[in-house]
Amino acid sequence: VTGLGRVTIVGGGPGDPDLLTVRAVRALASADVVLADRLGPAWALAELAPQAVVVDVGKEPGRQPVPQAEIERLLIAHARAGLHVVRLKGGDPFVFGRGSEEVLACAAAGVAVTVVPGLSSALAAPALAGIPLTHRGLARGFTVVTGHPLPDPAVLAGYDGTIVVLMGMAALPDLVGGMLAAGFDPATPSAVIERASMHDQRTTRAAVRDLAGTCSRIGVTSPAVIVIGAVAGLGAAAAYDDELGRDPGHRLWKTMTR
Amino acid sequence: VTGLGRVTIVGGGPGDPDLLTVRAVRALASADVVLADRLGPAWALAELAPQAVVVDVGKEPGRQPVPQAEIERLLIAHARAGLHVVRLKGGDPFVFGRGSEEVLACAAAGVAVTVVPGLSSALAAPALAGIPLTHRGLARGFTVVTGHPLPDPAVLAGYDGTIVVLMGMAALPDLVGGMLAAGFDPATPSAVIERASMHDQRTTRAAVRDLAGTCSRIGVTSPAVIVIGAVAGLGAAAAYDDELGRDPGHRLWKTMTR
Repeated sequence: VTGLGRVTIVGGGPGDPDLLTVRAVRALASADVVLADRLGPAWALAELAPQAVVVDVGKEPGRQPVPQAEIERLLIAHARAGLHVVRLKGGDPFVFGRGSEEVLACAAAGVAVTVVPGLSSALAAPALAGIPLTHRGLARGFTVVTGHPLPDPAVLAGYDGTIVVLMGMAALPDLVGGMLAAGFDPATPSAVIERASMHDQRTTRAAVRDLAGTCSRIGVTSPAVIVIGAVAGLGAAAAYDDELGRDPGHRLWKTMTR
Repeated sequence: VTGLGRVTIVGGGPGDPDLLTVRAVRALASADVVLADRLGPAWALAELAPQAVVVDVGKEPGRQPVPQAEIERLLIAHARAGLHVVRLKGGDPFVFGRGSEEVLACAAAGVAVTVVPGLSSALAAPALAGIPLTHRGLARGFTVVTGHPLPDPAVLAGYDGTIVVLMGMAALPDLVGGMLAAGFDPATPSAVIERASMHDQRTTRAAVRDLAGTCSRIGVTSPAVIVIGAVAGLGAAAAYDDELGRDPGHRLWKTMTR
Protein backbone atom coordinates (compact mmCIF):
# COMPACT_ATOMS: atom_id res chain seq x y z
CA VAL A 1 0.00 0.00 0.00
CA THR A 2 1.39 3.35 -1.04
CA GLY A 3 0.98 6.08 1.57
CA LEU A 4 -1.96 6.26 3.98
CA GLY A 5 -4.62 7.24 1.48
CA ARG A 6 -7.51 4.97 0.68
CA VAL A 7 -10.56 4.65 -1.50
CA THR A 8 -14.09 3.86 -0.33
CA ILE A 9 -16.57 3.03 -3.05
CA VAL A 10 -19.94 3.97 -1.59
CA GLY A 11 -23.35 2.86 -2.74
CA GLY A 12 -25.61 5.88 -2.45
CA GLY A 13 -28.91 4.01 -2.77
CA PRO A 14 -31.86 5.42 -4.71
CA GLY A 15 -31.26 9.06 -3.75
CA ASP A 16 -32.96 9.94 -0.46
CA PRO A 17 -30.18 10.57 2.11
CA ASP A 18 -32.37 8.70 4.62
CA LEU A 19 -31.75 5.54 2.63
CA LEU A 20 -27.97 5.66 2.94
CA THR A 21 -26.47 3.13 5.31
CA VAL A 22 -24.85 4.36 8.50
CA ARG A 23 -21.53 3.15 7.10
CA ALA A 24 -21.99 5.25 3.98
CA VAL A 25 -22.80 8.36 6.04
CA ARG A 26 -19.63 7.82 8.07
CA ALA A 27 -17.52 7.34 4.96
CA LEU A 28 -18.80 10.61 3.55
CA ALA A 29 -18.19 12.40 6.86
CA SER A 30 -14.53 11.34 6.79
CA ALA A 31 -13.87 11.94 3.09
CA ASP A 32 -11.26 14.38 1.82
CA VAL A 33 -12.40 14.08 -1.78
CA VAL A 34 -15.72 12.86 -3.20
CA LEU A 35 -16.02 11.79 -6.83
CA ALA A 36 -19.62 11.78 -8.06
CA ASP A 37 -21.76 12.35 -11.12
CA ARG A 38 -23.33 15.81 -10.96
CA LEU A 39 -26.36 14.73 -12.97
CA GLY A 40 -26.93 11.50 -11.05
CA PRO A 41 -29.31 10.89 -8.15
CA ALA A 42 -26.37 10.51 -5.75
CA TRP A 43 -24.94 14.01 -6.34
CA ALA A 44 -26.95 15.68 -3.57
CA LEU A 45 -25.65 13.13 -1.07
CA ALA A 46 -22.24 14.79 -1.27
CA GLU A 47 -23.74 17.43 1.02
CA LEU A 48 -23.03 14.91 3.76
CA ALA A 49 -19.34 15.57 3.12
CA PRO A 50 -19.18 19.38 3.58
CA GLN A 51 -15.51 19.09 4.53
CA ALA A 52 -14.59 17.42 1.24
CA VAL A 53 -13.72 18.63 -2.23
CA VAL A 54 -16.47 17.30 -4.49
CA VAL A 55 -15.40 16.46 -8.04
CA ASP A 56 -17.91 15.98 -10.86
CA VAL A 57 -16.96 12.93 -12.89
CA GLY A 58 -20.22 12.70 -14.82
CA LYS A 59 -21.66 14.19 -17.93
CA GLU A 60 -21.85 17.92 -18.34
CA PRO A 61 -23.76 19.76 -21.06
CA GLY A 62 -21.54 20.11 -24.10
CA ARG A 63 -18.82 17.72 -23.07
CA GLN A 64 -18.24 14.01 -22.84
CA PRO A 65 -18.50 12.10 -19.58
CA VAL A 66 -15.21 11.56 -17.80
CA PRO A 67 -13.84 8.28 -19.21
CA GLN A 68 -13.76 5.33 -16.82
CA ALA A 69 -9.96 5.15 -17.03
CA GLU A 70 -9.71 8.79 -15.96
CA ILE A 71 -11.99 8.18 -12.97
CA GLU A 72 -9.79 5.28 -11.92
CA ARG A 73 -6.67 7.44 -12.41
CA LEU A 74 -8.17 10.13 -10.16
CA LEU A 75 -9.09 7.63 -7.42
CA ILE A 76 -5.54 6.29 -7.36
CA ALA A 77 -3.82 9.67 -7.59
CA HIS A 78 -5.81 11.19 -4.70
CA ALA A 79 -5.29 8.12 -2.52
CA ARG A 80 -1.56 8.16 -3.24
CA ALA A 81 -1.53 11.78 -2.10
CA GLY A 82 -2.69 10.47 1.29
CA LEU A 83 -6.36 11.36 1.01
CA HIS A 84 -9.51 9.43 1.85
CA VAL A 85 -11.30 9.31 -1.47
CA VAL A 86 -15.00 8.45 -1.58
CA ARG A 87 -16.35 7.31 -4.92
CA LEU A 88 -20.07 8.00 -4.54
CA LYS A 89 -22.34 6.04 -6.83
CA GLY A 90 -26.10 5.67 -7.13
CA GLY A 91 -27.58 2.37 -6.00
CA ASP A 92 -25.14 -0.42 -5.22
CA PRO A 93 -21.59 -0.22 -6.59
CA PHE A 94 -21.56 -3.88 -7.62
CA VAL A 95 -24.83 -3.84 -9.56
CA PHE A 96 -24.27 -2.31 -13.00
CA GLY A 97 -22.12 0.36 -11.39
CA ARG A 98 -18.62 -0.48 -12.68
CA GLY A 99 -17.59 -0.47 -9.03
CA SER A 100 -15.76 -3.75 -9.46
CA GLU A 101 -13.64 -2.22 -12.22
CA GLU A 102 -12.65 0.58 -9.86
CA VAL A 103 -11.85 -1.88 -7.09
CA LEU A 104 -9.62 -3.88 -9.44
CA ALA A 105 -7.86 -0.73 -10.62
CA CYS A 106 -7.14 0.39 -7.06
CA ALA A 107 -6.04 -3.06 -5.96
CA ALA A 108 -3.73 -3.40 -8.97
CA ALA A 109 -2.20 -0.03 -8.05
CA GLY A 110 -1.65 -1.12 -4.46
CA VAL A 111 -4.21 1.34 -3.12
CA ALA A 112 -6.35 0.23 -0.16
CA VAL A 113 -9.97 0.08 -1.29
CA THR A 114 -13.25 -1.01 0.21
CA VAL A 115 -16.88 -1.13 -0.86
CA VAL A 116 -19.91 0.00 1.11
CA PRO A 117 -22.98 -1.78 -0.30
CA GLY A 118 -25.97 0.39 -1.07
CA LEU A 119 -29.65 -0.16 -1.78
CA SER A 120 -29.83 -1.11 -5.43
CA SER A 121 -32.67 0.60 -7.25
CA ALA A 122 -33.46 -2.83 -8.72
CA LEU A 123 -34.88 -3.81 -5.32
CA ALA A 124 -35.48 -0.46 -3.60
CA ALA A 125 -37.53 1.20 -6.34
CA PRO A 126 -40.14 -1.56 -6.44
CA ALA A 127 -40.21 -1.68 -2.62
CA LEU A 128 -40.75 2.08 -2.44
CA ALA A 129 -43.63 1.66 -4.89
CA GLY A 130 -45.17 -1.07 -2.73
CA ILE A 131 -44.18 -3.92 -5.04
CA PRO A 132 -42.49 -6.96 -3.45
CA LEU A 133 -40.10 -8.84 -5.75
CA THR A 134 -41.19 -12.11 -4.17
CA HIS A 135 -44.55 -13.13 -2.74
CA ARG A 136 -45.91 -16.56 -1.84
CA GLY A 137 -47.84 -17.99 -4.75
CA LEU A 138 -46.83 -15.21 -7.15
CA ALA A 139 -43.03 -15.15 -7.48
CA ARG A 140 -40.39 -17.46 -6.04
CA GLY A 141 -37.45 -15.43 -7.31
CA PHE A 142 -36.44 -12.51 -9.46
CA THR A 143 -34.02 -11.63 -12.22
CA VAL A 144 -32.38 -8.30 -12.95
CA VAL A 145 -31.20 -7.18 -16.40
CA THR A 146 -30.45 -3.93 -18.21
CA GLY A 147 -32.11 -2.72 -21.38
CA HIS A 148 -28.92 -2.26 -23.35
CA PRO A 149 -27.69 -4.32 -24.88
CA LEU A 150 -31.14 -5.82 -25.33
CA PRO A 151 -31.47 -9.10 -23.42
CA ASP A 152 -32.90 -12.10 -25.27
CA PRO A 153 -36.69 -11.55 -24.99
CA ALA A 154 -37.38 -15.27 -25.47
CA VAL A 155 -35.25 -16.15 -22.44
CA LEU A 156 -37.00 -13.51 -20.33
CA ALA A 157 -40.38 -14.73 -21.57
CA GLY A 158 -39.56 -18.19 -20.24
CA TYR A 159 -38.57 -16.97 -16.79
CA ASP A 160 -41.19 -17.63 -14.11
CA GLY A 161 -40.20 -15.06 -11.47
CA THR A 162 -40.30 -11.27 -11.29
CA ILE A 163 -38.34 -9.46 -14.02
CA VAL A 164 -36.62 -6.16 -13.18
CA VAL A 165 -35.16 -4.06 -15.98
CA LEU A 166 -32.79 -1.17 -15.25
CA MET A 167 -31.92 1.43 -17.89
CA GLY A 168 -34.65 -0.07 -20.01
CA MET A 169 -36.97 2.73 -21.09
CA ALA A 170 -35.52 3.09 -24.59
CA ALA A 171 -35.63 -0.65 -25.12
CA LEU A 172 -39.08 -1.16 -23.60
CA PRO A 173 -41.10 -1.51 -26.86
CA ASP A 174 -38.60 -3.95 -28.40
CA LEU A 175 -38.18 -5.88 -25.18
CA VAL A 176 -41.88 -6.34 -24.48
CA GLY A 177 -42.66 -6.92 -28.16
CA GLY A 178 -40.11 -9.71 -28.25
CA MET A 179 -41.42 -11.24 -25.04
CA LEU A 180 -45.02 -11.23 -26.28
CA ALA A 181 -43.90 -12.76 -29.59
CA ALA A 182 -42.25 -15.52 -27.54
CA GLY A 183 -45.53 -16.30 -25.80
CA PHE A 184 -45.35 -14.16 -22.66
CA ASP A 185 -48.78 -13.43 -21.18
CA PRO A 186 -49.75 -9.92 -22.39
CA ALA A 187 -52.00 -9.40 -19.35
CA THR A 188 -49.07 -9.75 -16.92
CA PRO A 189 -49.06 -6.81 -14.49
CA SER A 190 -46.13 -4.40 -14.78
CA ALA A 191 -44.97 -1.06 -13.46
CA VAL A 192 -42.41 1.64 -14.05
CA ILE A 193 -41.00 3.63 -11.14
CA GLU A 194 -39.37 6.99 -11.89
CA ARG A 195 -37.09 8.81 -9.45
CA ALA A 196 -37.61 6.30 -6.63
CA SER A 197 -37.43 7.84 -3.13
CA MET A 198 -37.24 11.40 -4.47
CA HIS A 199 -39.93 14.03 -3.85
CA ASP A 200 -41.28 13.46 -7.34
CA GLN A 201 -41.32 9.65 -7.36
CA ARG A 202 -43.97 8.41 -9.77
CA THR A 203 -45.22 4.89 -10.40
CA THR A 204 -47.03 3.95 -13.60
CA ARG A 205 -48.88 0.64 -13.76
CA ALA A 206 -50.29 -1.25 -16.73
CA ALA A 207 -50.67 -4.71 -18.20
CA VAL A 208 -47.34 -5.39 -19.88
CA ARG A 209 -48.89 -5.20 -23.38
CA ASP A 210 -49.89 -1.58 -22.62
CA LEU A 211 -46.83 -0.49 -20.62
CA ALA A 212 -44.75 1.13 -23.38
CA GLY A 213 -47.78 2.97 -24.78
CA THR A 214 -48.88 4.22 -21.38
CA CYS A 215 -45.37 5.40 -20.53
CA SER A 216 -45.05 7.17 -23.86
CA ARG A 217 -48.42 8.89 -23.46
CA ILE A 218 -47.76 10.26 -19.99
CA GLY A 219 -44.11 11.07 -20.61
CA VAL A 220 -42.22 8.65 -18.40
CA THR A 221 -38.51 9.49 -18.51
CA SER A 222 -35.23 7.87 -17.48
CA PRO A 223 -33.96 6.95 -14.99
CA ALA A 224 -36.74 4.49 -14.28
CA VAL A 225 -37.04 0.93 -13.05
CA ILE A 226 -39.31 -1.51 -14.87
CA VAL A 227 -40.97 -4.40 -13.00
CA ILE A 228 -42.78 -7.16 -14.88
CA GLY A 229 -44.64 -9.90 -13.03
CA ALA A 230 -47.70 -10.83 -11.01
CA VAL A 231 -46.34 -9.00 -7.94
CA ALA A 232 -46.89 -5.68 -9.73
CA GLY A 233 -50.62 -6.34 -9.47
CA LEU A 234 -50.75 -7.02 -5.73
CA GLY A 235 -53.33 -5.27 -3.62
CA ALA A 236 -50.55 -3.69 -1.63
CA ALA A 237 -49.23 -2.10 -4.78
CA ALA A 238 -52.61 -0.71 -5.69
CA ALA A 239 -52.95 0.84 -2.23
CA TYR A 240 -49.63 2.60 -2.58
CA ASP A 241 -49.53 5.97 -4.23
CA ASP A 242 -45.91 7.11 -4.07
CA GLU A 243 -46.64 8.85 -0.79
CA LEU A 244 -43.58 7.18 0.68
CA GLY A 245 -41.34 8.48 -2.06
CA ARG A 246 -42.83 11.94 -2.18
CA ASP A 247 -42.80 12.48 1.56
CA PRO A 248 -40.03 10.60 3.33
CA GLY A 249 -40.88 12.43 6.55
CA HIS A 250 -44.30 10.86 6.65
CA ARG A 251 -43.64 7.31 5.53
CA LEU A 252 -47.07 5.88 6.04
CA TRP A 253 -48.79 3.85 3.43
CA LYS A 254 -52.11 4.96 2.14
CA THR A 255 -54.19 2.18 3.61
CA MET A 256 -56.87 0.22 1.87
CA THR A 257 -60.46 1.00 2.65
CA ARG A 258 -62.40 -1.92 3.98
CA VAL B 1 -57.11 4.10 9.98
CA THR B 2 -57.92 2.95 13.49
CA GLY B 3 -56.23 5.01 16.20
CA LEU B 4 -52.82 6.62 15.80
CA GLY B 5 -50.76 3.45 15.89
CA ARG B 6 -48.76 2.33 12.90
CA VAL B 7 -46.54 -0.44 11.66
CA THR B 8 -43.11 -0.01 10.09
CA ILE B 9 -41.67 -3.10 8.43
CA VAL B 10 -37.91 -2.59 8.59
CA GLY B 11 -35.24 -4.35 6.56
CA GLY B 12 -32.34 -4.99 8.93
CA GLY B 13 -29.79 -5.83 6.24
CA PRO B 14 -27.18 -8.57 6.70
CA GLY B 15 -26.69 -7.99 10.44
CA ASP B 16 -24.01 -5.34 11.08
CA PRO B 17 -25.82 -2.31 12.60
CA ASP B 18 -23.55 -0.14 10.44
CA LEU B 19 -25.38 -1.48 7.40
CA LEU B 20 -28.81 -0.32 8.50
CA THR B 21 -30.20 2.64 6.63
CA VAL B 22 -30.62 5.93 8.46
CA ARG B 23 -34.36 5.51 8.04
CA ALA B 24 -34.25 2.10 9.74
CA VAL B 25 -32.26 3.49 12.66
CA ARG B 26 -34.83 6.25 13.08
CA ALA B 27 -37.73 3.81 12.94
CA LEU B 28 -36.14 1.71 15.67
CA ALA B 29 -35.45 4.79 17.79
CA SER B 30 -39.14 5.73 17.71
CA ALA B 31 -40.58 2.22 18.18
CA ASP B 32 -42.81 1.28 21.10
CA VAL B 33 -42.72 -2.42 20.25
CA VAL B 34 -40.25 -4.37 18.11
CA LEU B 35 -41.15 -7.81 16.72
CA ALA B 36 -38.08 -9.82 15.70
CA ASP B 37 -36.70 -13.35 15.47
CA ARG B 38 -34.40 -14.02 18.40
CA LEU B 39 -32.31 -16.50 16.45
CA GLY B 40 -32.04 -14.34 13.33
CA PRO B 41 -29.20 -12.01 12.37
CA ALA B 42 -31.43 -8.99 12.93
CA TRP B 43 -32.13 -9.70 16.60
CA ALA B 44 -29.16 -7.72 17.93
CA LEU B 45 -30.32 -4.66 15.99
CA ALA B 46 -33.19 -4.29 18.46
CA GLU B 47 -30.58 -2.78 20.79
CA LEU B 48 -31.12 0.36 18.72
CA ALA B 49 -34.61 0.50 20.26
CA PRO B 50 -33.77 0.48 24.01
CA GLN B 51 -37.04 2.28 24.76
CA ALA B 52 -39.13 -0.46 23.14
CA VAL B 53 -40.56 -3.77 24.27
CA VAL B 54 -38.86 -6.40 22.11
CA VAL B 55 -40.95 -9.47 21.29
CA ASP B 56 -39.44 -12.69 19.98
CA VAL B 57 -41.55 -14.03 17.13
CA GLY B 58 -39.03 -16.59 15.90
CA LYS B 59 -38.11 -20.13 16.72
CA GLU B 60 -37.15 -21.09 20.24
CA PRO B 61 -35.65 -24.40 21.30
CA GLY B 62 -38.44 -26.85 22.01
CA ARG B 63 -41.27 -24.89 20.50
CA GLN B 64 -42.65 -24.04 17.10
CA PRO B 65 -42.00 -20.68 15.46
CA VAL B 66 -44.78 -18.16 15.89
CA PRO B 67 -47.17 -18.74 13.00
CA GLN B 68 -47.32 -16.03 10.34
CA ALA B 69 -50.99 -15.33 11.12
CA GLU B 70 -50.10 -14.74 14.78
CA ILE B 71 -47.33 -12.28 13.82
CA GLU B 72 -49.80 -10.39 11.68
CA ARG B 73 -52.36 -10.42 14.51
CA LEU B 74 -49.77 -8.96 16.90
CA LEU B 75 -48.77 -6.21 14.44
CA ILE B 76 -52.38 -5.14 14.06
CA ALA B 77 -53.27 -5.43 17.76
CA HIS B 78 -50.32 -3.32 18.93
CA ALA B 79 -50.95 -0.68 16.26
CA ARG B 80 -54.64 -0.51 17.19
CA ALA B 81 -53.52 0.11 20.78
CA GLY B 82 -51.88 3.28 19.48
CA LEU B 83 -48.30 2.03 19.39
CA HIS B 84 -45.57 2.39 16.79
CA VAL B 85 -44.77 -1.22 15.95
CA VAL B 86 -41.52 -2.04 14.17
CA ARG B 87 -41.37 -5.43 12.46
CA LEU B 88 -37.63 -6.01 12.21
CA LYS B 89 -36.53 -8.49 9.58
CA GLY B 90 -33.18 -9.60 8.23
CA GLY B 91 -32.22 -8.41 4.74
CA ASP B 92 -34.97 -6.72 2.75
CA PRO B 93 -38.61 -7.23 3.76
CA PHE B 94 -39.73 -7.72 0.16
CA VAL B 95 -37.16 -10.36 -0.79
CA PHE B 96 -38.22 -13.78 0.58
CA GLY B 97 -39.22 -12.07 3.82
CA ARG B 98 -43.03 -12.37 3.80
CA GLY B 99 -43.04 -8.62 4.35
CA SER B 100 -45.61 -8.17 1.63
CA GLU B 101 -47.97 -10.54 3.44
CA GLU B 102 -47.65 -8.42 6.57
CA VAL B 103 -48.26 -5.24 4.59
CA LEU B 104 -51.40 -6.71 3.07
CA ALA B 105 -52.65 -7.87 6.46
CA CYS B 106 -52.15 -4.41 7.99
CA ALA B 107 -53.68 -2.64 5.03
CA ALA B 108 -56.69 -4.95 5.07
CA ALA B 109 -57.14 -4.16 8.78
CA GLY B 110 -56.99 -0.43 8.15
CA VAL B 111 -53.67 -0.07 9.97
CA ALA B 112 -51.17 2.43 8.57
CA VAL B 113 -48.09 0.54 7.43
CA THR B 114 -44.87 1.37 5.63
CA VAL B 115 -41.77 -0.49 4.51
CA VAL B 116 -38.15 0.55 4.98
CA PRO B 117 -36.06 -1.27 2.37
CA GLY B 118 -32.93 -2.99 3.65
CA LEU B 119 -29.79 -4.47 2.12
CA SER B 120 -30.78 -7.91 0.88
CA SER B 121 -28.18 -10.56 1.66
CA ALA B 122 -28.61 -11.68 -1.94
CA LEU B 123 -26.64 -8.59 -3.00
CA ALA B 124 -24.85 -7.52 0.18
CA ALA B 125 -23.25 -10.86 1.06
CA PRO B 126 -21.45 -11.18 -2.28
CA ALA B 127 -20.43 -7.50 -2.12
CA LEU B 128 -19.02 -7.95 1.38
CA ALA B 129 -17.04 -10.91 0.04
CA GLY B 130 -15.67 -8.82 -2.82
CA ILE B 131 -17.84 -10.43 -5.48
CA PRO B 132 -19.72 -8.09 -7.85
CA LEU B 133 -22.98 -9.51 -9.23
CA THR B 134 -22.32 -7.80 -12.55
CA HIS B 135 -19.03 -7.03 -14.29
CA ARG B 136 -18.33 -6.03 -17.87
CA GLY B 137 -17.57 -9.09 -19.95
CA LEU B 138 -18.50 -11.53 -17.19
CA ALA B 139 -22.13 -10.99 -16.20
CA ARG B 140 -24.77 -8.70 -17.63
CA GLY B 141 -27.37 -9.50 -15.02
CA PHE B 142 -28.21 -11.74 -12.10
CA THR B 143 -30.99 -13.95 -10.85
CA VAL B 144 -31.97 -14.74 -7.27
CA VAL B 145 -33.69 -17.95 -6.16
CA THR B 146 -34.11 -19.97 -2.97
CA GLY B 147 -33.08 -23.58 -2.48
CA HIS B 148 -36.46 -24.81 -1.35
CA PRO B 149 -38.49 -25.72 -3.14
CA LEU B 150 -35.70 -26.72 -5.52
CA PRO B 151 -35.69 -24.51 -8.62
CA ASP B 152 -35.49 -26.21 -12.02
CA PRO B 153 -31.74 -26.90 -12.44
CA ALA B 154 -32.07 -27.00 -16.23
CA VAL B 155 -33.49 -23.47 -16.30
CA LEU B 156 -30.70 -22.20 -14.05
CA ALA B 157 -28.11 -24.01 -16.18
CA GLY B 158 -29.32 -22.06 -19.21
CA TYR B 159 -29.09 -18.68 -17.50
CA ASP B 160 -26.11 -16.60 -18.63
CA GLY B 161 -25.76 -14.20 -15.69
CA THR B 162 -24.77 -14.56 -12.06
CA ILE B 163 -26.90 -16.98 -10.02
CA VAL B 164 -27.55 -16.24 -6.33
CA VAL B 165 -29.17 -18.88 -4.14
CA LEU B 166 -30.53 -18.04 -0.70
CA MET B 167 -31.42 -20.73 1.84
CA GLY B 168 -29.73 -23.20 -0.48
CA MET B 169 -27.19 -25.16 1.56
CA ALA B 170 -29.36 -28.25 2.01
CA ALA B 171 -30.27 -28.28 -1.67
CA LEU B 172 -26.75 -27.54 -2.93
CA PRO B 173 -25.76 -31.08 -4.05
CA ASP B 174 -29.07 -31.65 -5.86
CA LEU B 175 -29.08 -28.19 -7.37
CA VAL B 176 -25.53 -28.31 -8.71
CA GLY B 177 -25.88 -31.96 -9.75
CA GLY B 178 -28.93 -31.07 -11.78
CA MET B 179 -27.23 -28.06 -13.35
CA LEU B 180 -24.16 -30.08 -14.38
CA ALA B 181 -26.40 -32.81 -15.81
CA ALA B 182 -28.07 -30.09 -17.89
CA GLY B 183 -24.72 -29.05 -19.35
CA PHE B 184 -23.60 -26.28 -17.00
CA ASP B 185 -19.81 -25.73 -17.05
CA PRO B 186 -18.41 -27.61 -14.01
CA ALA B 187 -15.41 -25.25 -13.87
CA THR B 188 -17.63 -22.20 -13.26
CA PRO B 189 -16.34 -20.26 -10.23
CA SER B 190 -18.60 -20.20 -7.20
CA ALA B 191 -18.60 -19.11 -3.58
CA VAL B 192 -20.55 -19.46 -0.36
CA ILE B 193 -20.66 -16.59 2.14
CA GLU B 194 -21.62 -17.42 5.74
CA ARG B 195 -22.71 -14.80 8.26
CA ALA B 196 -22.07 -11.85 5.93
CA SER B 197 -21.02 -8.64 7.71
CA MET B 198 -20.69 -10.38 11.08
CA HIS B 199 -17.39 -10.75 12.96
CA ASP B 200 -17.15 -14.35 11.81
CA GLN B 201 -18.01 -13.85 8.14
CA ARG B 202 -16.41 -16.61 6.09
CA THR B 203 -16.22 -17.03 2.32
CA THR B 204 -15.55 -20.40 0.72
CA ARG B 205 -14.62 -20.52 -2.96
CA ALA B 206 -14.49 -23.45 -5.36
CA ALA B 207 -15.30 -24.48 -8.90
CA VAL B 208 -18.99 -25.25 -8.84
CA ARG B 209 -18.41 -29.02 -9.31
CA ASP B 210 -16.43 -29.00 -6.03
CA LEU B 211 -18.55 -26.54 -4.05
CA ALA B 212 -20.82 -28.94 -2.16
CA GLY B 213 -17.92 -31.24 -1.27
CA THR B 214 -15.73 -28.37 -0.10
CA CYS B 215 -18.55 -26.91 2.01
CA SER B 216 -19.28 -30.29 3.55
CA ARG B 217 -15.60 -30.89 4.35
CA ILE B 218 -15.04 -27.57 6.11
CA GLY B 219 -18.43 -27.47 7.78
CA VAL B 220 -20.22 -24.57 6.11
CA THR B 221 -23.52 -23.95 7.88
CA SER B 222 -26.70 -22.00 7.24
CA PRO B 223 -27.49 -19.17 6.86
CA ALA B 224 -25.27 -18.78 3.83
CA VAL B 225 -25.49 -17.16 0.41
CA ILE B 226 -24.38 -19.11 -2.66
CA VAL B 227 -23.01 -17.30 -5.72
CA ILE B 228 -22.42 -19.14 -9.00
CA GLY B 229 -20.82 -17.42 -11.97
CA ALA B 230 -17.66 -16.06 -13.49
CA VAL B 231 -17.73 -13.04 -11.17
CA ALA B 232 -16.91 -15.34 -8.23
CA GLY B 233 -13.49 -15.84 -9.82
CA LEU B 234 -12.59 -12.18 -10.23
CA GLY B 235 -9.21 -10.98 -9.07
CA ALA B 236 -10.95 -8.60 -6.72
CA ALA B 237 -12.63 -11.54 -5.03
CA ALA B 238 -9.35 -13.39 -4.60
CA ALA B 239 -7.82 -10.32 -2.98
CA TYR B 240 -10.60 -10.13 -0.44
CA ASP B 241 -10.38 -12.17 2.74
CA ASP B 242 -13.46 -11.35 4.78
CA GLU B 243 -11.50 -8.61 6.53
CA LEU B 244 -14.37 -6.26 5.80
CA GLY B 245 -16.91 -8.54 7.40
CA ARG B 246 -14.76 -9.47 10.35
CA ASP B 247 -13.70 -5.92 11.17
CA PRO B 248 -16.29 -3.34 10.20
CA GLY B 249 -14.26 -0.68 11.96
CA HIS B 250 -11.38 -1.15 9.59
CA ARG B 251 -13.10 -1.63 6.27
CA LEU B 252 -10.06 -1.74 4.04
CA TRP B 253 -9.56 -4.39 1.46
CA LYS B 254 -6.49 -6.53 1.57
CA THR B 255 -4.83 -5.24 -1.56
CA MET B 256 -3.23 -7.29 -4.28
CA THR B 257 0.53 -7.42 -4.35
CA ARG B 258 2.00 -6.17 -7.58
